[in-house]
Amino acid sequence: MIEIYRKRVFCADLQIGQEVSEVFCVARVQRRAGRNGYFLTLEFVDRSGRIPGVAWDEVDRLTEVLVEGAYARVGGRVTDFRGEPQIQVLNAAPAPPTVEPSDYLPSGPAPPERSMAGIHRLAESIADAGLRSLVRAFLGDPDFARRFAAAPAAKVHHHAYVGGLVEHTLSVMELCEQVARHYADLDRDLLLAGAFCHDLGKIRELAVEPGFPYTEEGQLAGHIVLGYQMVLDRAREIGLSPERMLDLGHLVLSHQGELEWGSPVEPRTLEALVLHFLDNLDSKIAAARPFLDEVDHGRTAYVRSLGRALFRRGAGGAKAEGEERSAPPRAG
Amino acid sequence: MIEIYRKRVFCADLQIGQEVSEVFCVARVQRRAGRNGYFLTLEFVDRSGRIPGVAWDEVDRLTEVLVEGAYARVGGRVTDFRGEPQIQVLNAAPAPPTVEPSDYLPSGPAPPERSMAGIHRLAESIADAGLRSLVRAFLGDPDFARRFAAAPAAKVHHHAYVGGLVEHTLSVMELCEQVARHYADLDRDLLLAGAFCHDLGKIRELAVEPGFPYTEEGQLAGHIVLGYQMVLDRAREIGLSPERMLDLGHLVLSHQGELEWGSPVEPRTLEALVLHFLDNLDSKIAAARPFLDEVDHGRTAYVRSLGRALFRRGAGGAKAEGEERSAPPRAG
Amino acid sequence: MIEIYRKRVFCADLQIGQEVSEVFCVARVQRRAGRNGYFLTLEFVDRSGRIPGVAWDEVDRLTEVLVEGAYARVGGRVTDFRGEPQIQVLNAAPAPPTVEPSDYLPSGPAPPERSMAGIHRLAESIADAGLRSLVRAFLGDPDFARRFAAAPAAKVHHHAYVGGLVEHTLSVMELCEQVARHYADLDRDLLLAGAFCHDLGKIRELAVEPGFPYTEEGQLAGHIVLGYQMVLDRAREIGLSPERMLDLGHLVLSHQGELEWGSPVEPRTLEALVLHFLDNLDSKIAAARPFLDEVDHGRTAYVRSLGRALFRRGAGGAKAEGEERSAPPRAG
Amino acid sequence: MIEIYRKRVFCADLQIGQEVSEVFCVARVQRRAGRNGYFLTLEFVDRSGRIPGVAWDEVDRLTEVLVEGAYARVGGRVTDFRGEPQIQVLNAAPAPPTVEPSDYLPSGPAPPERSMAGIHRLAESIADAGLRSLVRAFLGDPDFARRFAAAPAAKVHHHAYVGGLVEHTLSVMELCEQVARHYADLDRDLLLAGAFCHDLGKIRELAVEPGFPYTEEGQLAGHIVLGYQMVLDRAREIGLSPERMLDLGHLVLSHQGELEWGSPVEPRTLEALVLHFLDNLDSKIAAARPFLDEVDHGRTAYVRSLGRALFRRGAGGAKAEGEERSAPPRAG
Amino acid sequence: MIEIYRKRVFCADLQIGQEVSEVFCVARVQRRAGRNGYFLTLEFVDRSGRIPGVAWDEVDRLTEVLVEGAYARVGGRVTDFRGEPQIQVLNAAPAPPTVEPSDYLPSGPAPPERSMAGIHRLAESIADAGLRSLVRAFLGDPDFARRFAAAPAAKVHHHAYVGGLVEHTLSVMELCEQVARHYADLDRDLLLAGAFCHDLGKIRELAVEPGFPYTEEGQLAGHIVLGYQMVLDRAREIGLSPERMLDLGHLVLSHQGELEWGSPVEPRTLEALVLHFLDNLDSKIAAARPFLDEVDHGRTAYVRSLGRALFRRGAGGAKAEGEERSAPPRAG
Amino acid sequence: MIEIYRKRVFCADLQIGQEVSEVFCVARVQRRAGRNGYFLTLEFVDRSGRIPGVAWDEVDRLTEVLVEGAYARVGGRVTDFRGEPQIQVLNAAPAPPTVEPSDYLPSGPAPPERSMAGIHRLAESIADAGLRSLVRAFLGDPDFARRFAAAPAAKVHHHAYVGGLVEHTLSVMELCEQVARHYADLDRDLLLAGAFCHDLGKIRELAVEPGFPYTEEGQLAGHIVLGYQMVLDRAREIGLSPERMLDLGHLVLSHQGELEWGSPVEPRTLEALVLHFLDNLDSKIAAARPFLDEVDHGRTAYVRSLGRALFRRGAGGAKAEGEERSAPPRAG
Repeated sequence: MIEIYRKRVFCADLQIGQEVSEVFCVARVQRRAGRNGYFLTLEFVDRSGRIPGVAWDEVDRLTEVLVEGAYARVGGRVTDFRGEPQIQVLNAAPAPPTVEPSDYLPSGPAPPERSMAGIHRLAESIADAGLRSLVRAFLGDPDFARRFAAAPAAKVHHHAYVGGLVEHTLSVMELCEQVARHYADLDRDLLLAGAFCHDLGKIRELAVEPGFPYTEEGQLAGHIVLGYQMVLDRAREIGLSPERMLDLGHLVLSHQGELEWGSPVEPRTLEALVLHFLDNLDSKIAAARPFLDEVDHGRTAYVRSLGRALFRRGAGGAKAEGEERSAPPRAG
Repeated sequence: MIEIYRKRVFCADLQIGQEVSEVFCVARVQRRAGRNGYFLTLEFVDRSGRIPGVAWDEVDRLTEVLVEGAYARVGGRVTDFRGEPQIQVLNAAPAPPTVEPSDYLPSGPAPPERSMAGIHRLAESIADAGLRSLVRAFLGDPDFARRFAAAPAAKVHHHAYVGGLVEHTLSVMELCEQVARHYADLDRDLLLAGAFCHDLGKIRELAVEPGFPYTEEGQLAGHIVLGYQMVLDRAREIGLSPERMLDLGHLVLSHQGELEWGSPVEPRTLEALVLHFLDNLDSKIAAARPFLDEVDHGRTAYVRSLGRALFRRGAGGAKAEGEERSAPPRAG
Repeated sequence: MIEIYRKRVFCADLQIGQEVSEVFCVARVQRRAGRNGYFLTLEFVDRSGRIPGVAWDEVDRLTEVLVEGAYARVGGRVTDFRGEPQIQVLNAAPAPPTVEPSDYLPSGPAPPERSMAGIHRLAESIADAGLRSLVRAFLGDPDFARRFAAAPAAKVHHHAYVGGLVEHTLSVMELCEQVARHYADLDRDLLLAGAFCHDLGKIRELAVEPGFPYTEEGQLAGHIVLGYQMVLDRAREIGLSPERMLDLGHLVLSHQGELEWGSPVEPRTLEALVLHFLDNLDSKIAAARPFLDEVDHGRTAYVRSLGRALFRRGAGGAKAEGEERSAPPRAG
Repeated sequence: MIEIYRKRVFCADLQIGQEVSEVFCVARVQRRAGRNGYFLTLEFVDRSGRIPGVAWDEVDRLTEVLVEGAYARVGGRVTDFRGEPQIQVLNAAPAPPTVEPSDYLPSGPAPPERSMAGIHRLAESIADAGLRSLVRAFLGDPDFARRFAAAPAAKVHHHAYVGGLVEHTLSVMELCEQVARHYADLDRDLLLAGAFCHDLGKIRELAVEPGFPYTEEGQLAGHIVLGYQMVLDRAREIGLSPERMLDLGHLVLSHQGELEWGSPVEPRTLEALVLHFLDNLDSKIAAARPFLDEVDHGRTAYVRSLGRALFRRGAGGAKAEGEERSAPPRAG
Repeated sequence: MIEIYRKRVFCADLQIGQEVSEVFCVARVQRRAGRNGYFLTLEFVDRSGRIPGVAWDEVDRLTEVLVEGAYARVGGRVTDFRGEPQIQVLNAAPAPPTVEPSDYLPSGPAPPERSMAGIHRLAESIADAGLRSLVRAFLGDPDFARRFAAAPAAKVHHHAYVGGLVEHTLSVMELCEQVARHYADLDRDLLLAGAFCHDLGKIRELAVEPGFPYTEEGQLAGHIVLGYQMVLDRAREIGLSPERMLDLGHLVLSHQGELEWGSPVEPRTLEALVLHFLDNLDSKIAAARPFLDEVDHGRTAYVRSLGRALFRRGAGGAKAEGEERSAPPRAG
Repeated sequence: MIEIYRKRVFCADLQIGQEVSEVFCVARVQRRAGRNGYFLTLEFVDRSGRIPGVAWDEVDRLTEVLVEGAYARVGGRVTDFRGEPQIQVLNAAPAPPTVEPSDYLPSGPAPPERSMAGIHRLAESIADAGLRSLVRAFLGDPDFARRFAAAPAAKVHHHAYVGGLVEHTLSVMELCEQVARHYADLDRDLLLAGAFCHDLGKIRELAVEPGFPYTEEGQLAGHIVLGYQMVLDRAREIGLSPERMLDLGHLVLSHQGELEWGSPVEPRTLEALVLHFLDNLDSKIAAARPFLDEVDHGRTAYVRSLGRALFRRGAGGAKAEGEERSAPPRAG
């Protein structure tokens, strides 16, 4: 029986001065000309993050093993590169036949299966036969379902882990369901189907590989157009009416809300407005949460995707700091 | 018994050539120098809209009656002013002692009382004693309650009618309640109290008078600061803790979401983010709806507050037009 | 033999006070409630422009004939509506069986056939078999070719006439050919095919009907996505390689150059950069030219799509005005 | 002795229906093709404003007299054009040999001579010999001095009248003198000379003709570059040192403060920062004042150059309206 | 008698490799999980700046002394952290009972007392009894006066030192006085009182502690709203008329000039326009000056708050470099 | 005979720990106060890039040799400064009498002479006598020709090497010639002369010295105004007509296309529009190319001047990676 190899040393743990012999995924290899022949600049990656590398000797032999996207056992020493640790590679060997993917990819707080179950449940609640067939066609395609459950919802800012896409999709579907109950004139079925479809293109935009790199079509077409295309192909398959397809496609195309955020059209229907706002809300909440979790009370680190630091009021913090600095309701 | 005078002729009905003798509210009076002495340019208003006016003769006598903000019976003829109707005023008399305010102010689809009842119900569901006291203190103040129930939520773009503010406030509170159930880590009480308070300043920013003119403090301080001030004064009255006041005040101050939309601080807590998104959603939906209601199917007029025209798919429209123009899922 | 009916009276010629009996295309019909029953507000259109209309009487009978998109013989009087002429409709009858479409649609300076011939010639110069097949597949489809030759390149700003799309497409292809000769590392075939495809979606975005109205899919998906879809469908048909399709699709998707101008991705390849600049150049030149043609010398009217007025130096103007106002190379 | 002709009827006084026979300046003439031969669209101008015109008959004879920039006695009737008055021209004759320029150009509140005297006084207070010579060289050139004293400071927004440029220039010089006293490290002489020079280019950008039209070089080079050129030519004439010229030129080039406001470089020295702020302050105050002067108390009309309406507290207004609407310092 | 402890070693002097035993203020303490138990990341601060720290051992004992906001004697070695010095803490002890605050807070060029004296003098020159009382009420409150004199005017960009707020306030008051003399229609008293009040909220926004951290209410309400609140509370105390309060409050609220710079309303009165421009001028001059002081002649470092580098012409520099590089007034 | 000294060690090669004794150009010297007297912070430069330096001892003696802009033989050791190499200077001596300039300045792919020849050829093709004389006057001035051939086209983003300006100028002239053939109504002579002149100011904006520093007039006036001035001076010299000068000057002033990109006027003529687009195209292509050259296939590094990474499809890459990641034309 083939044993699965589990890592013990991760990128984020490496410190200058340390000897290293561990399996990493090779994210980048560049052969560059120095004064005394070629050398390699490298990047290694695992679920904890990234570390740069360099190799000065035996470049030809090393490049047989250090191939972009491959796994390799890397031996060497952690040295100082502009104040940050890097691996100075002394030798490299092919990785053991089976590595554990989860050692190289971050995972989220909840298992994707739970999110998938919630999505199935809400999909079945769609009353419109055409739209329900469409969503079922996706979910019933095992290849799609596997990729859907594995994908992250974004490369960096929110839900950037395996299972992130289904977690985000379910959350937006649930919000849409609630809001459809609040505004009686919304087309609940269209909104739910749109929430299901809105980020499908992410499974083709980002590769589920260490570092979640952009695919070629992710760079050249983008998840909005790719997702629209996926929906259109399924719609033709199941014979969805042109009007339904058009309205659903509009939800996918306009969900970023503004042209400068990458949507080629702005929301022009009530359902498109609602989907945009709820997708935005869920993304922002998810982007904010890890920063808030880092502090007990007070100011967080700067949240790049929001353009500001946030504030968390902790249970105890209110008392400790309140008197001194914040007694606002009295004049200066 | 004094009989209430009811209008029969409204601004929106006047046509060039028509004789007129009716009561209007005088929204603007300007005395201007012409070549042959002074003349008046005027603006009259009622619940249907506005109409300009002019008076060439007996200016001194007319200005005793035609006073800004007053009601007056205006006699004259509708003439053509740059292609639009205007009233050429020939005589003016004081209005009957009692006019019907609703003849001069637009009203919304639902009675304010119903919105107030919903707000009371949600207010009582606030578990936190301090925040509940605060909201109760507002609702229990008869003068406040009267002005709150009468105010519009905006001058033009959404809920711009008597009772609009409570309708919008209730809707945002309901959305907040749902979303607080969705995200377990939100402080439901703070969010509900924030939704209640967020637009309170509108009752001082806009006068509940024909045309909903900005008050002086509306122009010079704005509803966000005025509302913050109102909340702070109540908070001192009931002894709310400084921390609660600060967090609640932050929700009021940041609810517009961006500095350039008039908030002096951006949302920095989860609750502030949520309130901003849901307030924005409800306003945009309310701004869009009347434009969508105007068409059975197809493109609406341009919605200035959204910066685009919208689209409505009508029940019949789908069939009638679908074949011809929109068969999208086939190649060109 | 059925005789084709030719118009003699056009919208742009109508003057207040005139009697009218002529065939127009009905662009808009709205039934509105007045104080004394319903009335109609209308819009009529032909190749010279638009004119509003109104009908106060016999509304039910008129609406049988005055249907949106239909042609009708309209009888009535030109009256003054807010300073502009409008047709007060007194009677309406079905149009003669055959109207001449060119009476209702503006045409450009050159016949579409000439542009089509140029496009054919450049298409045949594409060396790459796959890309040449793709372009041939479009041009060899008679239905496509007919719609392509008839479409305008834009609703308002440039080439807004029948044949405008092929005129613009040919011009961009010619510019691309020249620039591909200048920069040796450009992929000439890809660039030419991209220039051919970049605005194809216009034939589905705009209806070739009086006024060039947006289609439903034009409003909800937009010409960039529609064009991408058309290219993708043809590519599947002829078996274009995935890489070629991706690169060509990228040219279509990114040709507007910036997200805020409606492209869902920005140009990421040399060819995409070049296509964007040359498309932009040709559109701007075409937008500017009619404004420059209007003046012999000096400042033009304001060009909305450029955000400024332009300047034309006329042959004689240089002398006439030069001495007085512009002697720049001397100190003040 | 030739008598100067004085106007009695001005554009702003003309009303629909009136007969007219008066001298105007011809601001624009366009010959256009109608269905029955050519007609003329015209624009007439005098110190009170503008009025459009039209001529249907005897076009050839009229165009001998109605020449752009010329004065002509115009006979005809004031008719309704899209709700606005226009002159329907029936005949035209050359104007009397001498018209009074001030009948055709607006003048400001103070005589230009007074502003010029102030400028002379401050110019003489410049201690640096080179800079003083430069300013003297301008002021001692009679042709320059005449044009400087006559020019407006802007076409529309502020000081848009004869003498406006010297009034604005003096005001900015005075402000600079005060601020140079406040910040001891400022180079007072450089700042004063820069204030003198900053808008000199206006005398070549705008023609001192009815309507203050842009000159050709105003359109193609703009007042900043023209003014820089004027200063550079004078600097060469008097032999100013290259360093002084460069620093002074920088003040002229950067005084608009931001690239998007038309300065090709941003302020990079303390003096350039100060000049920009004080020029901006004086322009904004001057733009605001006429709007504030129009109201006794309350909101002004919308000030386009500021992007908002302003507010004026009148002497009496405070009492009259205060109680009702603005009692701000009490809770809601 | 307790002796005050004076520091001899400051953050800015520490070099990698050095042994250290000195008192610092502890600005930040974070307990983090490493592979072998917890460790601490720290930040120490004094008047010269900041330095990061780390502690690997005896974490529990150290955290009794190393408390955020406390002073502590820190022993250890300066090591290399990503190319920058950091203190590797080996031991820590409570600081001596009395440290000298000025060792930990930067001070400005002039003593706060001198600025306070100038403010008192100008305050007494306010003729309006109500406004004078208001300013006196602030200045006569010893607690306020102490905090006012100690506060910085900003965290980073200008006057970021003890006494910076009164220095900036006095400068803006002086500028306002001069400009009020220049424009006769300004309300001098209102303008002076507004200049006094405009930044009062800074004393609650920023803590006068090492590093000038934002307070909670600084983060959640901001200095504009806090200052408005302080003025309103005083106004109620002394019975200022509602109109005066409103106009003065408007100056505080609008002084940043644009919504996107954090003012909830834009300047709508002449006085508000003037205050905004002069506050902006003084801040920018103060932000620029230290950068200019750093160079004798030529280009400064990049000034982040201005978005560009500045230029200083030095006394000698003009000659040395002029000939070679800048001989501008000759053609190329 | 004096031998020219050639460098063997370049900035980009230096590694921490290495001893160094080599000639560098001194780009920056700053004397700063430390705790134990003054020390120097330095920057050295050669054609390969920059390296910082520091000198702790014998500061007075060193500053006699280490002068900004001079060449010096520098002896010392490469040490670690914040993770980057720096030279710790131990001694310095004057450089050998003749250094090889090309050791200190980057050069481009083609010799400037070849570009100059192309420019001469196109210049002679200008039919208009005045414009041809103007261009000849520039090219016939040996001092100008030498500086023109040596200048870079930009400091960083494109053609940032000796000869870059003529390479870019020729490319834009060639593009203009082609486009002038395409659009028959363009003034070819004006366009070619404009392309020749558009960036002339670069020879005064940037010094052809190691690092291409901005000159003083480059900082204070900028290349657009400097180039306009150069053209104007030549135009006066050869007696070009004011109209031609104005039109040509407009091309120089407006070639950046937008005010916020530094042009004081926007393009207002057809030729100005064309020049702007083609200059922009050539700059962007030149900025992109080195980034594309760095990769065989796939995503490039981030291109700052374009605001995005680019993509290059390599010959082999299409196959290798296509199957896996990019199979786009199939549904998800």
